[in-house]
Amino acid sequence: MKILIAPDSFKDSLSAKKVAESIRRGIIHELPDADIKMLPLADGGEGTVNALVDATHGRTIEVAVVDPLRRKIMAKYGLLGDGRTAVIEMAAASGIELLKPTERNPWLTTSFGTGQMIRDALDKGCRKIIIGIGGSATNDGGVGMAMALGIKFLTSKGIETGYGGGELSGIAKINVSELDERIRDTEVLVACDVTNPLTGVRGASQVYGPQKGADQDMVLQLDNNLKHLAGLVNKQLGKDVEDIPGAGAAGGLGAGLVAFFDARLMKGFEIIRQVTQLDKAVEWADLVITGEGKIDVQTQYGKTPMGVAGVAKKYDKPVIALAGTLGEGYQELYSLGFDAIVSILDKPVTLNEALINAPHLLERCARSAIRLFLLK
Amino acid sequence: MKILIAPDSFKDSLSAKKVAESIRRGIIHELPDADIKMLPLADGGEGTVNALVDATHGRTIEVAVVDPLRRKIMAKYGLLGDGRTAVIEMAAASGIELLKPTERNPWLTTSFGTGQMIRDALDKGCRKIIIGIGGSATNDGGVGMAMALGIKFLTSKGIETGYGGGELSGIAKINVSELDERIRDTEVLVACDVTNPLTGVRGASQVYGPQKGADQDMVLQLDNNLKHLAGLVNKQLGKDVEDIPGAGAAGGLGAGLVAFFDARLMKGFEIIRQVTQLDKAVEWADLVITGEGKIDVQTQYGKTPMGVAGVAKKYDKPVIALAGTLGEGYQELYSLGFDAIVSILDKPVTLNEALINAPHLLERCARSAIRLFLLK
Repeated sequence: MKILIAPDSFKDSLSAKKVAESIRRGIIHELPDADIKMLPLADGGEGTVNALVDATHGRTIEVAVVDPLRRKIMAKYGLLGDGRTAVIEMAAASGIELLKPTERNPWLTTSFGTGQMIRDALDKGCRKIIIGIGGSATNDGGVGMAMALGIKFLTSKGIETGYGGGELSGIAKINVSELDERIRDTEVLVACDVTNPLTGVRGASQVYGPQKGADQDMVLQLDNNLKHLAGLVNKQLGKDVEDIPGAGAAGGLGAGLVAFFDARLMKGFEIIRQVTQLDKAVEWADLVITGEGKIDVQTQYGKTPMGVAGVAKKYDKPVIALAGTLGEGYQELYSLGFDAIVSILDKPVTLNEALINAPHLLERCARSAIRLFLLK
Repeated sequence: MKILIAPDSFKDSLSAKKVAESIRRGIIHELPDADIKMLPLADGGEGTVNALVDATHGRTIEVAVVDPLRRKIMAKYGLLGDGRTAVIEMAAASGIELLKPTERNPWLTTSFGTGQMIRDALDKGCRKIIIGIGGSATNDGGVGMAMALGIKFLTSKGIETGYGGGELSGIAKINVSELDERIRDTEVLVACDVTNPLTGVRGASQVYGPQKGADQDMVLQLDNNLKHLAGLVNKQLGKDVEDIPGAGAAGGLGAGLVAFFDARLMKGFEIIRQVTQLDKAVEWADLVITGEGKIDVQTQYGKTPMGVAGVAKKYDKPVIALAGTLGEGYQELYSLGFDAIVSILDKPVTLNEALINAPHLLERCARSAIRLFLLK
């Protein structure tokens, strides 16, 4: 029997790899000779670097960059098993969690550190770069990132502009002549599940600005600044990025990646699916097991178990999902490709107890599920 | 598909009947046309009357009796669907829970009320009587019960003795000439999972006397009194009941039932199995679902799910068990006939939340289990 174990992480408890290993232990109680493939996954958000590094037997790189306020920090990204693909979470260098609440100010914060990670990946020989863009502290339209790769943003007097979303209005000229050549030969994929345009009421500044520290005045100015940038990009680079779904992700980094690096915005899970060669693994398997810490009616919107169930159904393979919590409306998923959804809990416990016991609970639940599956 | 739902109750939460109904609701989500038989069960202890009344579509009878201290109370017993079988829990008339802690005194307490229930059942035409003997307040060797059916216990002066375990030493003569004739034509089955003999270190007085209110002196006198009774029974009735396994159950009521009514002591579950015609239902079914509030390593010792699993294995039918709590070592049961054991819990909750939500949790879990079962 060939079994594919392809879970997401259990948030605050176990990495996707540990989840897969726990499930595997449960299965081999019942099927010691089963042919088991473990493929730790993610949905393009938090945990994506670890999951892809684990899934491809790659490694983690640590590099000196600047944080959103240009202080030196060390940031990690993933170098995948093929040796030519990097997985970078922008939040590692430019994330909101790197700042104290009082430091949050999108007028000043820059995505420069994200650009430094990209440059480091190019130095390591990567020619495929996957960027996850959740949790940003910035609203600079990716200008900082572009600067780190050699693009010059000049005022009408030909002087380079400063850092942060507040500086965009001063840009008159985008000079790409010194852009790092290597980026032209590099496939840049952006894991992006949000569909916000760059500007306007659904744009980066108005939707996400307040949580990054902008007051209402600043939000409107930042929105105007991004509009100004989009105008320049349109005129000088010949690209209309303002209304692309996802352009407004990560303070306009989505737009910047498209404008400056010809990046492709993709659903996070679709990138994971491609990189991990999930389809091949599903096609091989007789049974697919996935899981996530919580499964509920929201799971259908881009979460890993939904993606796995979709691929499983494409190849007509049975798919079982394991979760710590089954939330409101999870039964809806039965009609969307999930054959069975089970909770790993086995007695009344607190959340904290469940988190601590998750490896054992997963193992026991996987064993029980396999017994039921084999029963008929 | 023919499915038998044969659970015990979920203690402090749902009767066996409600458990079965909840499981049924879960199944028909997936198998609206399934042929489902519900057989609420018990293990001979608490809940046995309700389960058997529900399983056989019988009814409950309420009758005026005396409590262990001979105060008038109303007590319930079950009249099964066949109209000729009664199910009596001795605790309904003679149980420890009927007394305040300060009232507990096995020197005085009598099983007379249990005899009154038996007589009422005979009046109703019953000729098969099933007696559950857990939770007694008495240590009178069933003498009180026998008195209620007409047996006279006389002193050496020919005077009737009084009530309670303290009076047994005064008995010189057991006169059965006025025993209710009908009891001779009646099959009396005692649901008894304990194996204590009547007397000695494993006997009724020494093991259970203290929890009924006896101090160490009283325990020894009660033990001597039961020994005295056993001697009389042996000499005058020609029956040796002192060392029968189960003779010491319910303060020697086990011995008394054998001595005075020719009762048969049986494992509780075996009686349930016989009365509910469980074997026939299992033979009919394609799948058997059982369950109990908690399933753990102890379940194998006479609990309902173990009994059901045993019968299912006899007929080579798959059996799934549902529980609120899976306790220590439940996996041992996999090798004892259980095909799958699953918890109904689906998120971290308190025990109280789990108890309140049990009907929904059971329904969802049954649905999920059936989906897994049907999957391969």
